[in-house]
Amino acid sequence: MNASLSTRELQALDSAHFIHPFTDTKALAAKGARIISKAEGIWITDREGHRILDGMSGLWCVNVGYGRTELADAAHRQMAELPYYNSFFQTTTEPSILLAAKLAELSPGFSRVFFSGSGSEGNDTVLRLVRHYWSVMGQPKRSTIISRWNAYHGSTVAGASLGGMKYMHEQGGLPIPGIAHIDQPYWVEHGHGMDREAFGKLAASWLEDKILELGPENVGAFIGEPVQGAGGVIIPPASYWTEIERICRKYDILIVADEVICGFGRLGSWWGSQRMGFKPDLMTFAKGVTSGYFPLGGVMVGDRVGEAIVEKGGEFEHGYTYSGHPVACAVALANLDIIEREGLVQRVAEVTGPRLRKGFAALADHPLVAEPEALGFVAGLVLAKEKGGPADGPGFVPFAPELGVGMVCRQHCFDNGLVMRAVGDRMIVAPPLCMTEDEVDELLRRIRYCLDRTYEDVRARGWC
Amino acid sequence: MNASLSTRELQALDSAHFIHPFTDTKALAAKGARIISKAEGIWITDREGHRILDGMSGLWCVNVGYGRTELADAAHRQMAELPYYNSFFQTTTEPSILLAAKLAELSPGFSRVFFSGSGSEGNDTVLRLVRHYWSVMGQPKRSTIISRWNAYHGSTVAGASLGGMKYMHEQGGLPIPGIAHIDQPYWVEHGHGMDREAFGKLAASWLEDKILELGPENVGAFIGEPVQGAGGVIIPPASYWTEIERICRKYDILIVADEVICGFGRLGSWWGSQRMGFKPDLMTFAKGVTSGYFPLGGVMVGDRVGEAIVEKGGEFEHGYTYSGHPVACAVALANLDIIEREGLVQRVAEVTGPRLRKGFAALADHPLVAEPEALGFVAGLVLAKEKGGPADGPGFVPFAPELGVGMVCRQHCFDNGLVMRAVGDRMIVAPPLCMTEDEVDELLRRIRYCLDRTYEDVRARGWC
Repeated sequence: MNASLSTRELQALDSAHFIHPFTDTKALAAKGARIISKAEGIWITDREGHRILDGMSGLWCVNVGYGRTELADAAHRQMAELPYYNSFFQTTTEPSILLAAKLAELSPGFSRVFFSGSGSEGNDTVLRLVRHYWSVMGQPKRSTIISRWNAYHGSTVAGASLGGMKYMHEQGGLPIPGIAHIDQPYWVEHGHGMDREAFGKLAASWLEDKILELGPENVGAFIGEPVQGAGGVIIPPASYWTEIERICRKYDILIVADEVICGFGRLGSWWGSQRMGFKPDLMTFAKGVTSGYFPLGGVMVGDRVGEAIVEKGGEFEHGYTYSGHPVACAVALANLDIIEREGLVQRVAEVTGPRLRKGFAALADHPLVAEPEALGFVAGLVLAKEKGGPADGPGFVPFAPELGVGMVCRQHCFDNGLVMRAVGDRMIVAPPLCMTEDEVDELLRRIRYCLDRTYEDVRARGWC
Repeated sequence: MNASLSTRELQALDSAHFIHPFTDTKALAAKGARIISKAEGIWITDREGHRILDGMSGLWCVNVGYGRTELADAAHRQMAELPYYNSFFQTTTEPSILLAAKLAELSPGFSRVFFSGSGSEGNDTVLRLVRHYWSVMGQPKRSTIISRWNAYHGSTVAGASLGGMKYMHEQGGLPIPGIAHIDQPYWVEHGHGMDREAFGKLAASWLEDKILELGPENVGAFIGEPVQGAGGVIIPPASYWTEIERICRKYDILIVADEVICGFGRLGSWWGSQRMGFKPDLMTFAKGVTSGYFPLGGVMVGDRVGEAIVEKGGEFEHGYTYSGHPVACAVALANLDIIEREGLVQRVAEVTGPRLRKGFAALADHPLVAEPEALGFVAGLVLAKEKGGPADGPGFVPFAPELGVGMVCRQHCFDNGLVMRAVGDRMIVAPPLCMTEDEVDELLRRIRYCLDRTYEDVRARGWC
């Protein structure tokens, strides 16, 4: 784009002017950020020409892969015709209408959508929507929302408060009042020695404990990602969500599925909640709806909530400038069209997802790997110092967290042409849904290669 | 776009599926939303072919006007090359670097930028950034932010809490703790009988009162729009901001300018704070940075805050998926290029802004009009039942609020080819900065015509 500046000059400008998200700017300046310049399919290319297999779909979002000219063309067409108009003040636009109708068609039981510009804004909307609903229903005391430690629900003040990232709470005086957290359904952390399905029911019972502690009359909703993403691809036992659903129904508490990562095919179903077998009342979405080509998010409003707030709610005093942005909606329509036309959801469910799962299971023989698991197109494994260990342990001996083995592995991946993310010592991927079977095999080959490099490195350092 | 569906069919889909922002969905369904289909320059066109002069620049955002193929082309080019990549995890992209550098160049004293996807996300970031700064500085108690009633700072939970819209606070249990509000510097409401500049100092003194009430050691920042937008184009007396600045410096309190509306030329200066003559520590921006063609927002970080958090802050635990979106940044660069190349800021300052101001002043002779005022390319007037009134009054007799005269006028405007917004009985405009002098005159002609229609209507109803 700017061929006249060298990479070093660009890096210097980057350090001087751009405060990166979730980054120590001073530390990054000392090293220089890697500049990603172009991308095609599942491959990103940096400014030095290194091709890297993007195992994270950008940031869990580039579901249809890079280089889709249909999406660029749809954006261009709409931008030339009507680049912006709002949907405040009794006006609307055709792309926003058609996308709302399309999303309702893809989501049985969810007739209505509220558009935002991101998943953060969507989850932020959830807090106000849940409270507005209970107020309309004459139960305004039901204002507390229960979430989970290590959940990720975005980075606005309300989103980060709903989330359970303690390092985020420590900056800025979070969480805000009216939000409670229970532990996550992570067997490795909490389920030692237990049967997995029994552990799923136990983890769900923590919700009932919390509801009774707070008083059901004070609880408005439970929110959760069907599979936790940023927390490290935490795939709950099959028993978990059905039990959560039973408990929420018992106490008449709304269920909010944060589908920002799981929606639009990630788990081999249109919505992650479908794959996990439960029916939420609200679903937050973003990312995959446009494959990240254009910012767009929102809340799918289930009919219980939708009927109430529309019939009895009057004006909903909430909205964003870019709610229903016509270009965003046009890009989303083109993106959904690709997903449908190429049968990506079904392919992940039946072909490529099972292949990824099998490949991850096969990584169990690697000396560094514990607990490899996959569902649809998310997968994770733990870097372990040693296999086995005590019977009431996680089945492996972990590295000391301060060694940062995950970050060592992430660097080997990046240096060897693979984006794989580290969450502590969990290594995770969420590749583009457009992957072919050969590309899945290539991903797995690269993962094993990078694990080998990490193992050599870790042994050389005397860490195992 | 979808020629096969009739307007009525589209309106039915809209009502069934699309929850509009700040709207009573049931009431809108009974009427049917107006579908805006295309736009060019300062004109929007609905599906029935009605051409409407957009006096509001979409939603205070389409600064360069509609139909700018440079922006569509920039989006297309970047989307084909690299449609998305994140700036987490030590990576970056060229458009985000170049935009960060460009914004710093336009903003003396602000070397750094944090990108968000919207103004709401920007103001939400401000709350965490202010608290992070004071924590880094060893004064974590300085967590309260002072704002103003009738301010608008977005619609996330933190943004709406920082804002002072009581009807928003009533839904969802807002404001969150740690935010205090003082009255706005609106002479018509609070300044009756006073000299305007003396009133500006009085309104600023409310900030000092509040600081002393809370204890300066507990106050982190004051936030304000240079000119309040959504609150009804409240232009403070010239004395106001200089006095606010003096008070903030006296107690070592950060100043945050919410430049979401005023930034990028709206007041005839790059930043509204420049026009109002004060130097903020942080500036929130959005809207005009891309002229609304692509969602983008952020916070300009002044060097006092920037140096501290970069040198001593470690990791800033905050960020959005779309922070520094490469297509958003490419569109912004192309948009800023248009603003500079066509000299729009200077034209508003020297030519079209003064013409609008003169035209608004001339509306004072209209029997319905009180308090017409304009600054740069924002303007407002009050619909008054009668001129004059008691010496300690606002200089006019207002209509009873429940009559909704503003909404009656807004409808006459829309029906007669003009978008003019009603905030209570204040009628406001914020037209595209690209307007020619002839177009300013056409805007003024339409405003007078619609005021005439409103006056006839209001008299026929016996309201005056």
